[in-house]
Amino acid sequence: MSVAAANASASPRFILTLGCPDRRGIVARIAGFVADAGGWITEASYHSDPETGWFFTRQEVCASTLPFGIDELRTQFGAIAHEFGAQAEWRVHSTAERRKVVILVSREAHCLYDLLGRVTSGELDVDVRAVIGNHAELATVTRAHGIPFHHIEFPKGIDPEGKQAAFAQIRQIVDVHEPDAIVLARFMQVLPHELCAAWAGRALNIHHSFLPSFVGARPYHQAHTRGVKLIGATCHYVTAELDAGPIVEQDVIRVSHTDSVSDMVRKGRDIEKVVLARGLRWHLEDRVLVHGNRTVVF
Amino acid sequence: MSVAAANASASPRFILTLGCPDRRGIVARIAGFVADAGGWITEASYHSDPETGWFFTRQEVCASTLPFGIDELRTQFGAIAHEFGAQAEWRVHSTAERRKVVILVSREAHCLYDLLGRVTSGELDVDVRAVIGNHAELATVTRAHGIPFHHIEFPKGIDPEGKQAAFAQIRQIVDVHEPDAIVLARFMQVLPHELCAAWAGRALNIHHSFLPSFVGARPYHQAHTRGVKLIGATCHYVTAELDAGPIVEQDVIRVSHTDSVSDMVRKGRDIEKVVLARGLRWHLEDRVLVHGNRTVVF
Amino acid sequence: MSVAAANASASPRFILTLGCPDRRGIVARIAGFVADAGGWITEASYHSDPETGWFFTRQEVCASTLPFGIDELRTQFGAIAHEFGAQAEWRVHSTAERRKVVILVSREAHCLYDLLGRVTSGELDVDVRAVIGNHAELATVTRAHGIPFHHIEFPKGIDPEGKQAAFAQIRQIVDVHEPDAIVLARFMQVLPHELCAAWAGRALNIHHSFLPSFVGARPYHQAHTRGVKLIGATCHYVTAELDAGPIVEQDVIRVSHTDSVSDMVRKGRDIEKVVLARGLRWHLEDRVLVHGNRTVVF
Amino acid sequence: MSVAAANASASPRFILTLGCPDRRGIVARIAGFVADAGGWITEASYHSDPETGWFFTRQEVCASTLPFGIDELRTQFGAIAHEFGAQAEWRVHSTAERRKVVILVSREAHCLYDLLGRVTSGELDVDVRAVIGNHAELATVTRAHGIPFHHIEFPKGIDPEGKQAAFAQIRQIVDVHEPDAIVLARFMQVLPHELCAAWAGRALNIHHSFLPSFVGARPYHQAHTRGVKLIGATCHYVTAELDAGPIVEQDVIRVSHTDSVSDMVRKGRDIEKVVLARGLRWHLEDRVLVHGNRTVVF
Repeated sequence: MSVAAANASASPRFILTLGCPDRRGIVARIAGFVADAGGWITEASYHSDPETGWFFTRQEVCASTLPFGIDELRTQFGAIAHEFGAQAEWRVHSTAERRKVVILVSREAHCLYDLLGRVTSGELDVDVRAVIGNHAELATVTRAHGIPFHHIEFPKGIDPEGKQAAFAQIRQIVDVHEPDAIVLARFMQVLPHELCAAWAGRALNIHHSFLPSFVGARPYHQAHTRGVKLIGATCHYVTAELDAGPIVEQDVIRVSHTDSVSDMVRKGRDIEKVVLARGLRWHLEDRVLVHGNRTVVF
Repeated sequence: MSVAAANASASPRFILTLGCPDRRGIVARIAGFVADAGGWITEASYHSDPETGWFFTRQEVCASTLPFGIDELRTQFGAIAHEFGAQAEWRVHSTAERRKVVILVSREAHCLYDLLGRVTSGELDVDVRAVIGNHAELATVTRAHGIPFHHIEFPKGIDPEGKQAAFAQIRQIVDVHEPDAIVLARFMQVLPHELCAAWAGRALNIHHSFLPSFVGARPYHQAHTRGVKLIGATCHYVTAELDAGPIVEQDVIRVSHTDSVSDMVRKGRDIEKVVLARGLRWHLEDRVLVHGNRTVVF
Repeated sequence: MSVAAANASASPRFILTLGCPDRRGIVARIAGFVADAGGWITEASYHSDPETGWFFTRQEVCASTLPFGIDELRTQFGAIAHEFGAQAEWRVHSTAERRKVVILVSREAHCLYDLLGRVTSGELDVDVRAVIGNHAELATVTRAHGIPFHHIEFPKGIDPEGKQAAFAQIRQIVDVHEPDAIVLARFMQVLPHELCAAWAGRALNIHHSFLPSFVGARPYHQAHTRGVKLIGATCHYVTAELDAGPIVEQDVIRVSHTDSVSDMVRKGRDIEKVVLARGLRWHLEDRVLVHGNRTVVF
Repeated sequence: MSVAAANASASPRFILTLGCPDRRGIVARIAGFVADAGGWITEASYHSDPETGWFFTRQEVCASTLPFGIDELRTQFGAIAHEFGAQAEWRVHSTAERRKVVILVSREAHCLYDLLGRVTSGELDVDVRAVIGNHAELATVTRAHGIPFHHIEFPKGIDPEGKQAAFAQIRQIVDVHEPDAIVLARFMQVLPHELCAAWAGRALNIHHSFLPSFVGARPYHQAHTRGVKLIGATCHYVTAELDAGPIVEQDVIRVSHTDSVSDMVRKGRDIEKVVLARGLRWHLEDRVLVHGNRTVVF
């Protein structure tokens, strides 16, 4: 069941996630801990990766069945996580806490429009705190949804200091919200390394190609030149290396010789929208566990 | 190339379509007619159906390369069509004439929202003349896009006369615009036979199943009960028999045992949106030729 | 990891499956049982269905990490299953026991050919004990693979007794092998009720449509007449009602107005083959748990 | 309709293809030529590429409706092709001439097995003249189908001269058949430049990735390391640059974190088989027109 559905019901869930070196008894230990406390597990996922020797789990527990709140749960589950050698790779969240999102855009409307539609209909039950654009085009649609829009102008020519200043402004606006996700919804600027580091594991990008094909600029032009028969889109976490972060979701659509670059751009938009929306949903539902440069999506 | 792209360019196209009994020389006759007039064909599609013995064609001709306008073209091409025994199955349109659309909705926002997004961005270059709802929920989003919204209330209980009156009102609003397409964007009322007849070949419905599976009400519930592994959506022309009209486009998405009915509803929406948008685009670009209960989509 | 891969490695697995009424502590009880015995779980799947209140699980345990063999495991796990009210819905298998399969065919070669190819290459590590055909066409290819072929002729006209006798012969040949799966690989005869009952949960059929569309005979003809834009195939367990058993797997492929019925037949074959192969693999790996008329596929 | 279906019917077709600089009147000229001769066009495809200014067409004409045979047709159509500036980019074939194919393999059986199954069932109505392997493993299955198998051993270490000699032997075996297609069905050796040149436009390779991702060796390992969510296969013409020739067909299949490299290899095989079979069919039906490094697939 989705976070939205869980929120809609009278019964919030606690979501526990953990990644640690694999060994015997982890499932028993975690499930035993929840059961001993009287907790009802409504969804449980496990994965053992024989190549890396790593273990991953995600559990949804009916919050009302536990005799304690999230703070105590965090303390107790954290102790277990440390037992198994998980340093930072564990989390406890409540579906009752509404997730906060900041969206970065440029001129292209379709991903923003799609996300706002999902938020408005309640399908995506999140709190969009701000939209930041390096162009002003999307201010109107954003504000029509009651969401603040910040226009941060970027320098036109090569101006590293101007760019740095623009990113400093963006960071200030973003960080005050402590967002659970920073969404690059066809934001066409490359994040500086310090922002990649500061937002590690929270910044999601949609790239308009089936990565690792067609990294960088104008992927539909590259795809057209290469004569591929399918085009795609990739939702991935932003890391310092361009378009090389852990992949959360991908999808493709068929094209043919009749499709010009602009037809590809149009068809690709429909893929970009759903791939980004799925990736964001899974991220906010704590379904995505990152290990090295790969993801487990429960 | 799409209508939008053609419009965007300085060069409108004439679109000719024809369906008639197959025989030798039709391609030569039509292509010869265009060539003799000096016309440049930018896209040409032909299909011979050996089972029905029917021939179909669609041609895009660069308007500026012809020495006459659309009225003369209609006269001359109509004469050729009659030569080949095409009664009503031929059309001539100019991409310079902006297509008119009326949208019928109920409470579900996603298809309307998606269409308005495409219109706003210019991807779908059409004139949405009105949105008509049997509920008032979608009035705000419609009017925010500068489009008139008409709320036509339907009777609650069984009240055939009340229903008839409501449909009479709808018809009045629709017909004044002489729309090229009447889009049932998750409009949950069954059109009366006289409207099916009046709008034949212009009324497009999106049904939230992979037809002919799960005709009628609550298809996602039916799909869940049957335990299917893929769910779908179907865009079809409205005819007197419920959900049985000529199919324009279909698509599917994978589901599993982890998907509740509400998960299916959510996943299905993404398919409904794109299937309807594709079907509408093809209809408005005169790519859909209907013969019997089947379609040729060029 | 697949059964084949597990077999290939030096380390067989025990596979435990269970379906029972959902309640607190089941995961903890099962995982605790395995952990207390020193077992290493290499794959664990759980599913709670809120609508039916049913709980499902499948576990793979490294056999060499348990201090006892499959008989003792069966005794102990059976006791736990009974604790939780699972009557017949639990199983324990070892990947070291090679699965036995009997295949029923008619004239169409593609599914049989595909399965034999997978068996020959070792991809599908099963013991095909016999192929039974109501026609003799596929005898040669079967025997070329070193597998016995039985030709059981069916009466031409309406001859219920002759048919019954033919099915009695088939049953005799099948039952002596105590197969884990009876595969109807485009076997065009409807199984009598007593065979459906005798082989319940073991007889897999491939139907050449996207069920529940186009039940029964000549589904591609039905699909062509309806003018669908996608055709499909469905692998399902055989039950007394024709083409209505629990669905294991489905897939689709796009068709268009250019596809004749024979084109659909040809395209459909590629879907039938992979859908049947996937369904059979999952069945033999104990990944499919049936509850009512629906399946959980872990 | 497919070549097989056309062959099966009493009525062979002539297939005309042409690529030339676009200009007015080409359709009229070709269709007029066929019509004036009394020919019945059963399938006609046209494509104008605005970016390259190139025009492409493919026509199927019912052979019995023309008053002359293929030689005269070739003469007359060749004259027209030259009128429009097509140097080498035109062809005339009869579906009555059975196409000749040579297949190159290594150890992997699945693509060969799949092709032989299609040939045996008559789905692919071609004449497989020879199978050549740099290993002997696939000799038995090849010969069981009545097809000669040639084992050409390649040197183990770095031995350019030995390799050259092996390829010279292969070339000799291939060229004597004047095949319409040389199929590299998971042949793991890189063709030398002189063979790429000699077989230009006739040598089809199946690469086990979604090109241009994962060029070269071990693409599934590369895909696993990158953590992609879909894997694919690409059928392309062989050119001097490795895995960079014109793409004929591609397809993908979904993978997840649960798939090991060997699972990807297994899932990928099903995609490789159908992508190669589709590419080969289209090539042999003269549906693929190459221009620069891109293909038009009618």
